[in-house]
Amino acid sequence: MRVLGIDPGLTRCGMGVVDGELGRPLTLVDVNVLRTSSQVPVPERLVTIEKGIDAWLDDYRPDAVAVERIFARSDVSTIMGTAQASGLAMVCAARRGLPVALHTPSEVKAAVSGNGRADKAQVGAMVTRILRLPAMPKPADAADALALAITHIWRGSAQARIDAALSRAAQTRPGRAAGKAVR
Amino acid sequence: MRVLGIDPGLTRCGMGVVDGELGRPLTLVDVNVLRTSSQVPVPERLVTIEKGIDAWLDDYRPDAVAVERIFARSDVSTIMGTAQASGLAMVCAARRGLPVALHTPSEVKAAVSGNGRADKAQVGAMVTRILRLPAMPKPADAADALALAITHIWRGSAQARIDAALSRAAQTRPGRAAGKAVR
Repeated sequence: MRVLGIDPGLTRCGMGVVDGELGRPLTLVDVNVLRTSSQVPVPERLVTIEKGIDAWLDDYRPDAVAVERIFARSDVSTIMGTAQASGLAMVCAARRGLPVALHTPSEVKAAVSGNGRADKAQVGAMVTRILRLPAMPKPADAADALALAITHIWRGSAQARIDAALSRAAQTRPGRAAGKAVR
Repeated sequence: MRVLGIDPGLTRCGMGVVDGELGRPLTLVDVNVLRTSSQVPVPERLVTIEKGIDAWLDDYRPDAVAVERIFARSDVSTIMGTAQASGLAMVCAARRGLPVALHTPSEVKAAVSGNGRADKAQVGAMVTRILRLPAMPKPADAADALALAITHIWRGSAQARIDAALSRAAQTRPGRAAGKAVR
């Protein structure tokens, strides 16, 4: 399974591609941070981000896209740009029929470090270890994008196993388990 | 001048096309409200909105797109979807090289009614009168989109006249006026 993780932002948009599956070592494919200048009008900045995401979808052909879920209670000064970049990331994926998953920052921190309140440095250190990288990806947006991709591979695989098990149970014991296969 | 006004939203996205110029009667070209169901995943809803906006850009070929400027202090429960829809509107226009202008709700209310605190009914009534419509456009998102287009034609025309006058002044009296032509 190949996942593109996107840490959305207007000034810095992290993108990380990871290959792998649950229970096996994961592999870094590529990581980058798209940057746009605050001197440029927002519509043009969004077009730059869209082109950058589309180019990676073309080049790396991920099976799924994982985007950080943004909350309205986040930093007000950057929330609009972040929301717009996250919407673009979702559209770029959905347009191609790719599954899109949203993971909260707490879910990502918990998945990679076991601690939903881990700080940036802890997340970066765990990403470095999980992907066996020679150095921590920088800036933090790069590490966060990889952490999103890792989270999605682990959560997605686990969910797929649960769904498959429930589906099998429903087929073999339709009377008892049919109602449980609904997510 | 033909302007597409967009009142962005995930559940209801108003779109209104108006023809005209400052000092002449304006004409309604078309108005519609794109709707997406909250039962559908957000990425798919955004793709539906993108397709709807793109279709109108294809069909009506506006000279400019006017989008409501969203503030982070708006209603928290809908701000994310609104921000994402507004980003999409900007991208759809900018991708085609069309100028995009953002107008605040207060600017729109002031432009069409002379009162920056006008309510929905007053804005709707003024849009109906300005475009000489047989009835008020409904829902409010439709009237708001038309109000945005009207605002843009009036503001854009006024700004263009000021720019042109400053430019002429700069050409005829380069020594005195050159510094003033900068916006």
